[in-house]
Amino acid sequence: KEFELSPKDDFDRMKMEDLLKQKFFYDQSFSIYGGINGLYDFGPMGCAVKANLLQAWRNFFVLEEQMLEVDCAMLTPEPVLKASGHVDRFQDYMVKDLKNGECFRADHLIEAHLEKMLTEKKTPDEKKEEIRKLLPRIDGMDRNDMEATLKLYNMKSPITGNDLSDPIDFNLMFSTSIGPTGQVKGFLRPETAQGIFVNFKRLLEFNQGKLPFAGAQIGNAFRNEISPRSGLIRVREFTMAEIEHFCDPEHKDHPKFENVADLEVTLYSGCNQMDGKPPEVMKIGQAVKERLIANETLGYFMARIYLFMVRCGVDPKRLRFRQHLSNEMAHYACDCWDAECKTSYGWIECVGCADRSCYDLTQHTKATGVKLVAEKKLPEPISFTFHFFNSSHKVVDIVECQPQKSILGKAFKQEAKVIMEHLSHMTEQEVTVLEEKLKTKSGVELAVNGKTFSITPEMITVKKYQKTVHVEELVPSVIEPSFGVGRIMYSIFEHNFRVREGDEQRTFLSLPSVIAPYKCSVLPLSNNPEFDQFITALSKSLTKCDVSHKIDSSSGSIGRRYARTDQIAVPYGITIDFDTLKQPHTATLRERDSMKQIRAAIDEIPGLVRDLAQNKRSWEDIMNNYPIFEQQETTSKN
Amino acid sequence: KEFELSPKDDFDRMKMEDLLKQKFFYDQSFSIYGGINGLYDFGPMGCAVKANLLQAWRNFFVLEEQMLEVDCAMLTPEPVLKASGHVDRFQDYMVKDLKNGECFRADHLIEAHLEKMLTEKKTPDEKKEEIRKLLPRIDGMDRNDMEATLKLYNMKSPITGNDLSDPIDFNLMFSTSIGPTGQVKGFLRPETAQGIFVNFKRLLEFNQGKLPFAGAQIGNAFRNEISPRSGLIRVREFTMAEIEHFCDPEHKDHPKFENVADLEVTLYSGCNQMDGKPPEVMKIGQAVKERLIANETLGYFMARIYLFMVRCGVDPKRLRFRQHLSNEMAHYACDCWDAECKTSYGWIECVGCADRSCYDLTQHTKATGVKLVAEKKLPEPISFTFHFFNSSHKVVDIVECQPQKSILGKAFKQEAKVIMEHLSHMTEQEVTVLEEKLKTKSGVELAVNGKTFSITPEMITVKKYQKTVHVEELVPSVIEPSFGVGRIMYSIFEHNFRVREGDEQRTFLSLPSVIAPYKCSVLPLSNNPEFDQFITALSKSLTKCDVSHKIDSSSGSIGRRYARTDQIAVPYGITIDFDTLKQPHTATLRERDSMKQIRAAIDEIPGLVRDLAQNKRSWEDIMNNYPIFEQQETTSKN
Repeated sequence: KEFELSPKDDFDRMKMEDLLKQKFFYDQSFSIYGGINGLYDFGPMGCAVKANLLQAWRNFFVLEEQMLEVDCAMLTPEPVLKASGHVDRFQDYMVKDLKNGECFRADHLIEAHLEKMLTEKKTPDEKKEEIRKLLPRIDGMDRNDMEATLKLYNMKSPITGNDLSDPIDFNLMFSTSIGPTGQVKGFLRPETAQGIFVNFKRLLEFNQGKLPFAGAQIGNAFRNEISPRSGLIRVREFTMAEIEHFCDPEHKDHPKFENVADLEVTLYSGCNQMDGKPPEVMKIGQAVKERLIANETLGYFMARIYLFMVRCGVDPKRLRFRQHLSNEMAHYACDCWDAECKTSYGWIECVGCADRSCYDLTQHTKATGVKLVAEKKLPEPISFTFHFFNSSHKVVDIVECQPQKSILGKAFKQEAKVIMEHLSHMTEQEVTVLEEKLKTKSGVELAVNGKTFSITPEMITVKKYQKTVHVEELVPSVIEPSFGVGRIMYSIFEHNFRVREGDEQRTFLSLPSVIAPYKCSVLPLSNNPEFDQFITALSKSLTKCDVSHKIDSSSGSIGRRYARTDQIAVPYGITIDFDTLKQPHTATLRERDSMKQIRAAIDEIPGLVRDLAQNKRSWEDIMNNYPIFEQQETTSKN
Repeated sequence: KEFELSPKDDFDRMKMEDLLKQKFFYDQSFSIYGGINGLYDFGPMGCAVKANLLQAWRNFFVLEEQMLEVDCAMLTPEPVLKASGHVDRFQDYMVKDLKNGECFRADHLIEAHLEKMLTEKKTPDEKKEEIRKLLPRIDGMDRNDMEATLKLYNMKSPITGNDLSDPIDFNLMFSTSIGPTGQVKGFLRPETAQGIFVNFKRLLEFNQGKLPFAGAQIGNAFRNEISPRSGLIRVREFTMAEIEHFCDPEHKDHPKFENVADLEVTLYSGCNQMDGKPPEVMKIGQAVKERLIANETLGYFMARIYLFMVRCGVDPKRLRFRQHLSNEMAHYACDCWDAECKTSYGWIECVGCADRSCYDLTQHTKATGVKLVAEKKLPEPISFTFHFFNSSHKVVDIVECQPQKSILGKAFKQEAKVIMEHLSHMTEQEVTVLEEKLKTKSGVELAVNGKTFSITPEMITVKKYQKTVHVEELVPSVIEPSFGVGRIMYSIFEHNFRVREGDEQRTFLSLPSVIAPYKCSVLPLSNNPEFDQFITALSKSLTKCDVSHKIDSSSGSIGRRYARTDQIAVPYGITIDFDTLKQPHTATLRERDSMKQIRAAIDEIPGLVRDLAQNKRSWEDIMNNYPIFEQQETTSKN
C-alpha cells in the first residue's frame, strides 16, 4: 500500500555495510572480545559525520530558535524515573526459550512468525486474511493479547524450535548503584528529556520567567534491548538530540508558523492507518487547520524536522510522518507523530514529535512537592471601562484546612507533625469531602504514610474565603521533538549509497557537504616534487576558508584516488597537474556525484569550494562560468 | 614552598559560585529530588563554554595533528576491563563509620586528620615533624600502611567521632548487566582510552598500516567516587578528551618537537618533590635533553597541553607539570606528568600525560589472542655493498613445540584439544624449559586451565630453525594525554573570576573569546523603536560573520545591562544610541575587561568583532585606529 510513495530500488545492504566497515564509518564495539550486540563504535569518518550532523542540528535548532541548551547527568536516581513512569512502564515483553534460556522480544517474534506464515503456501487463505488484520495491531498488544497470540499460533523459538515461556515484563533500563553503600539505586537515563524537566525552574528563571521557551539537549541514552539485531537501528547506547518546548497550554500557536504553513509533507494519519488507506501529501498549514495535527507548535516543529532531515541528506520521498495510534502512544503523550525514514529494514522511526501536555512537570511536582509552574500575568485592568468579566484579575475560591496543633499534638504525640503536614496539603476537594464526612460522623479514618488515624471534628478548622489574584500559575505544556541520531545517520547512509553506472565495484556515498567528513580533497596528479608547493599553498588557503580537506598524495592513479575519496563522501576534489605549473596557475575542480570537472585559477578555487560547501553557490552555476575540463576520468582510471 | 610560583589572591569561592549558579553555568543535578553528590548539570552558559572548549580542543589537537577521532561505547563488558587492569586495581580504600555506616575515602580522611593536627597547639613539635614527613607519602600508601596510620593516630569519623572500620577495597566502577539474561556483566567505562585500544587494528588499517598515528576521543566516563565533595573537581560522571599516540617504541622522537623546544614551562619533578625542593621553570627542549622528561613525544604533548590550556584561559602562573612518583604511578604508566592548575582547592590535576609504553595493547592481546601489533619494514638491502650486520633483514631463531596429536588424543581424550592448544602457543622460553625437563624426567606435570597433566617426551616434538624476516612486528608504545574537561573548566572559571575595582558586587568572568558563550552583545540604549532596524541589520551581519551574539533590549540602564553581559563573559558589546540614527551611522564597541569603548561605522563593526574574537586583531590595535568613546560607563550605571 505504501508502494507509490517509496521508490523502487535495488539497494544492496551488504555492499553498503562493506563500504562503511572498510572505511571505518562505524563497526561493532569490542569485536576483538567477540563483540556485544547493540553496541557500535564510530571510526574517524563516522565520527566526523556525527559531529557535523550534531553541529548542523545545533545551528538549525538551538541557535536559530534561541533554545536553552543543557548537558545533564546520565546517571539518574530511581525516584526521578519512578516519577516519569519509566520504572513502572518502560518495558518490553520478552519470551524465553524454555530449554536454552535465549530471550526474544515478544512483539518482534510474533511479527516475524506471522509474516513468515503469510509467505507460506500451506497457510489457508482465511488464516492469511486473519493475519493481515492482526499485524497492524501488534504494536498495541498488552501481555494478555500476546500470550493469547503465542498460544493461538503455537509459536516456538525460531532458532531451536523449543517451547517458549509466556511473555515476561522486561524493564529496558540499565540499573546500577550510586555511591559506596549500595543504597542509592540509579539507572542510566533512557532518554535525555528528564534532565530538562528537572531543570525546568532554573531554565524558566534563566529566561526571566517568560513562556514559551525551549530547552534542548544532545547526549547519550541507554536501553537494554532484549535482542538487538538491526545494526545502528536498534542499539543499547545511542545519542539523542531532544527539544522540550514549554508553552502556555491555552496558546499552542507559534509566531513563525506562517513561514512553514505551505510546506508539503507526507502524513500517515492514525485514521488512514486504521482504515488501510495510504499516507497523503499535505501542506502543514492545511493539516493544522483540519486539526489532523493537534496544534501550530507541533506542526511547526514537524516542518522544521522535515527541513532539517532533507538538508542533511534524507531523501524526501523516503520520509513521512506517521501518527501514533492511541493504543501505542507512550504513557506521557497526547498526540505524537514519528518522522519515519524508509530503509531496507522498512520504515523506521527517526524523530518523534510528541505533545506531552503537562504530564512530566506534573509528575515531578507530585514526587517532590516542588511547584514546576510558570506565572502568567493577567492583563492590567483598563481604568476607563468596567467589565464584569474583567480578565485583569481573577477571583478564586479558597478552601483550606487548618489543623489545630495543640489538639492534634495531644492526640498523636510525635506523629502529629506528619498528620498536620498532610492536612494542610489537602486539595480543595479533599478538604470538602473530609468536612462533609465529619458533619455526619464523630471520627473519620485518615490514612497518612500507610497508617490510619482517627480525626475528630475539633482537630481541624475549615476556612473558606475568596482571593483576588493578578497572576495565574500554570503548568506549561511540552512539545517534544526527539531525534535518534544513529538512526538518522543510518537512513542518510542508505539514502546516499550509490554505485557508479557501469562499474558495480565502484560504490560511494553522496552525502551533502554539510555532513560530509571532509569538504574537499587535494590530489597531485603524480608525486612530481614540483607539485608540492602548490599543495602546501592550497591547503593553507583552504584552512583559511574553513574548508576541511584531505590531501591524498599516495601512489595510485588519479582515477583510483578519486574513487577512494568518493567512498568517504568528499564532495569536491582539486587536482594539481602539469598545467598547474604554467602561468597563470590553474587547477581542476571536480564534483563527486556528476564527476564533472572545471578548470579555474588556483587562487580562486578555495573560495569556490567554500561557497559550494556552504550552499552559497550551486555546481551548475560554477559549470556555467568556468571552462569544463574535458579529460574523462575513466581514461585515467587504472 | 610553592609560594613564589602562585600569585597571592583574595579569591572568594562563594562569590564565584553564586555567579555561576545564578547565571546557570552549572548546578547540582536532580536538586529538586535532593540532589546527588558528584553529579552536575550544565545550563545554557556552561553548555556553551563546554561546547566551545571541546571545539577548540578538536581544532587544536584532532585537526591540527590529523588525529583519528573515534566515538566508542561507554557500556563495557567485564573482560575488557579485566584485561586493562581496572577490575582488579581501579579502586580506592574506604573506611566506614562503624555505627552509622557512613563511608570516607581513607586517604582523604588521613590527610585531613593530619593537616588538622598540624594546626593544633596541643600537638607536640616532634609529632608535627613526623606528620610533615608522612603527608607527601599518603598517595603511595597501600592498605597496610593506611591501617597502621589510622591506628597509630587513633583516627575516628570526623563527623560523628565514632570508631572506623579498617580500610576496605572499593572498586570505583559502576557495574550493570547487559542484555536480558543478566549473564553479561558490564561496567560504565572509567576512561575513554580502552575504546581506542580495542579499535587499534581498525585505526592502524585506516592509517594504511603506518606508525605513528594518534587516536582521539571525546566522551563521558564514570567513577563511583566514595564521597565526592569538591564541586566540579571530583564528580561521578565527567567528560574526558583523550589522545592515544601510537609510536615505535624505539623512536619516540617527534618531527615537530623543534617548534616547541624553547617553550618555558614549570616542572615539578619527582626528585624535587622527594627532596622538598620547589618546581622549576625550564625549557621543554632542555628537560628532554636532560632526560627529565622521558622522550620528545611526551615533551611535545606537554608543550601542546600548555599552549592549549593558556589559550583557553588558564593562568600560566597557576599551571605546572608535576611528575608522578613511582609509588603513585597508575598501574599502566612508565612516566607520567600531570598538568596541574592552582585553585582554591589547591593544585588539581587537569590533564595527565603518560607514557603507557606497550602495556594496554599487550594486555588486550593476552586476553583475546588477537595480535595488536604494527609491522615495521626493514630497509631494503643495499646491493653494491655487503654488511655482515645488514639490517635489511633479520635472521631469527624459531623454537616451536609441535604436539603429537594421536598420542595426546589417546592419553587425554576430549581434554587433548586444550592441551594441544596450550602446547602450540608456548613461548620460545617455555618450550626450552619443557624440553630441558623432559631430557631428565620421563614425565613432566603441565598445568592447563587449572588442571595438571603428565606430559611424556614422545608427546611433543621440538622444532628449531632459522627464519629470515623482512618485516618486523612490534607492539607500539602509547603516549597518552588525557584531559579532564570539567576540571579544566572549573580552573578557567577560577582563574577568570573578577570583581570590578571599587564595586564588590559587580563580579564578572574574563573568559577569552574562544570559549566565551557569546562573542558579542547588542544593546539598544533605550527601547526607542527607531533603534530596531539597526539591531536587526546588525544581528544579520554578525550571523554572516559567524559571530554568536546576544541581543539585550530589556529595560534597565545600559550600565546595568553591560554588567549583566559581563557576568556571562561576553567579551564585546555594541551599543546603538541616538548618534547611530544620524548619517553616517555609527555605534560604540566596548571591550569587557577594560570597559573601554570606541566608535565606528556600524557596517564595519561586525568584521571588527569577528577579527577580535578570532584573535586576528588586538583590542589595542582597535583603540589606536578608532576614536575613543569617552562617555564613562559609571555615569549611566543606574
